[in-house]
Amino acid sequence: MRPPDRIRVKRMPKRGHYDRPTIDAILDEALICHVGLEVEGQPYVIPTLHARVGDRLYLHGSSASRMLRQAASGARLCATVTLFDGLVLARSVFNHSVNYRSVVVFGTATLVEEDEKLHAIRALAEQVAPGRWDEARQPSQQELKATSIVSLPLDEASAKVRTGREEDDEEDLDLPVWAGVVPVYLAAEPGEYDWRRVRDGRVGPPR
Amino acid sequence: MRPPDRIRVKRMPKRGHYDRPTIDAILDEALICHVGLEVEGQPYVIPTLHARVGDRLYLHGSSASRMLRQAASGARLCATVTLFDGLVLARSVFNHSVNYRSVVVFGTATLVEEDEKLHAIRALAEQVAPGRWDEARQPSQQELKATSIVSLPLDEASAKVRTGREEDDEEDLDLPVWAGVVPVYLAAEPGEYDWRRVRDGRVGPPR
Repeated sequence: MRPPDRIRVKRMPKRGHYDRPTIDAILDEALICHVGLEVEGQPYVIPTLHARVGDRLYLHGSSASRMLRQAASGARLCATVTLFDGLVLARSVFNHSVNYRSVVVFGTATLVEEDEKLHAIRALAEQVAPGRWDEARQPSQQELKATSIVSLPLDEASAKVRTGREEDDEEDLDLPVWAGVVPVYLAAEPGEYDWRRVRDGRVGPPR
Repeated sequence: MRPPDRIRVKRMPKRGHYDRPTIDAILDEALICHVGLEVEGQPYVIPTLHARVGDRLYLHGSSASRMLRQAASGARLCATVTLFDGLVLARSVFNHSVNYRSVVVFGTATLVEEDEKLHAIRALAEQVAPGRWDEARQPSQQELKATSIVSLPLDEASAKVRTGREEDDEEDLDLPVWAGVVPVYLAAEPGEYDWRRVRDGRVGPPR
C-alpha cells in the first residue's frame, strides 16, 4: 500500500517505515522532540518533552506558549523525534552519512484536560525519568493547572531509518582510508542515583 | 538592550542568551539540527546536518527536497539545535526538568553556489567528522553537483540554556527523595577508529 502523500518519505524512500511498532519504538526511546508550528508566515521549531500513550503523542506545552495558542486555535503541528545512532565514515567524503532513526508526526493539536491530562503528565514524567512518579512528590492540583499538555493523534506519522555499514563506491574500495561506523548513543554519567534509565550508563528505554 | 520580539525568549526569559559566543558554541557542538518550514499550511520539521562558518549557518539540503524548493523561493526557515545536557531530578515531579542548550535561528534561506558551496560542504563534513576531509577522498565535481546546501544568516538567532541543580520548593526539601542532576551526553563507542571527536568516548567539539 502506498502511504498518503504527506507522510511518505520522498528522499531515500527505502528508509521509510509506516508501521506503528517501528514508529512507537522510536517515539518511546527518544527523550526530546522538536515541534514545528507556523505563526504569521514564520515557522518555529521548539524543543520539548513528549510521551506516547497508545495512539496519541503528548507534548509538554508550558515550554512554548505559542504552541498552546496554536493548539487552542486548531492549528496544524509537526512533531519530529530523532535518535542519532552512528557516524558512518566512508572512504569518500561524499559517502559519509549518519545512522539515525526519526519519526515525523503531523496533526491538529488539541489541549488535554482533566483525567487525560493527569495520565499525560504522568507519561511525560516517566518518559524522561522512569519510576520517579512513585518516588517523588506527585503534582498538586495547583501544579496540574500550571502545566499544559497538547495532544497529537498518531494517524499521520512516518519513520525514517538508516542503519548498517558505510556504502562506498566500487572504485573507492581500495583507497587506504579507514571506513566503518562509529556507534553513538546518549549516555549518562554514573552517579549517586541508581535509576533504570542510566543504570548501565546508557539513556534509553528499560531493557 | 531588549532583543527583537521574534528572537526574544518568552518562556523563562532568564534562560535567554543573545550573544554570538554563546550561540556559536552551541551550534558548533551540535551534530544535527531540526529545520522547520511551512508548505501549504502544514509545518514540517526535518532533521539534517548543519555547520556554522562565520556569520552563516549551512544546512545540508539533499536530505529534504522540500527545503530546497522553499529556499529557492525565498521562504522563511527556522533551524533549531538542541544539546541535551542532563536530567534534573527534583523532590517533586512538578520541579523535574532537563538541562539543555538550544539555539533557534530564523531567516530567509538561500541556495549556496560555487566556491562558497565547496567551503560549506567541507564545513558540513568536518562538523560530524573532524579531520575526515583530508583523510577521505574529496568530492568530485559530479558529487558536488549532487549535493545541495542552503544558507541562513545568523542575525536572527537566540539561545536558551538551563544549567545547574534542581530547584525544589522550600516545603519539599525534607522529603526523603533523592534529588540531583544526572549529566547526559552523546557518547561514542570505543572502536577501531581513533578520531578526535570520539577519542575520549565523548562526541563533541575537540578539547
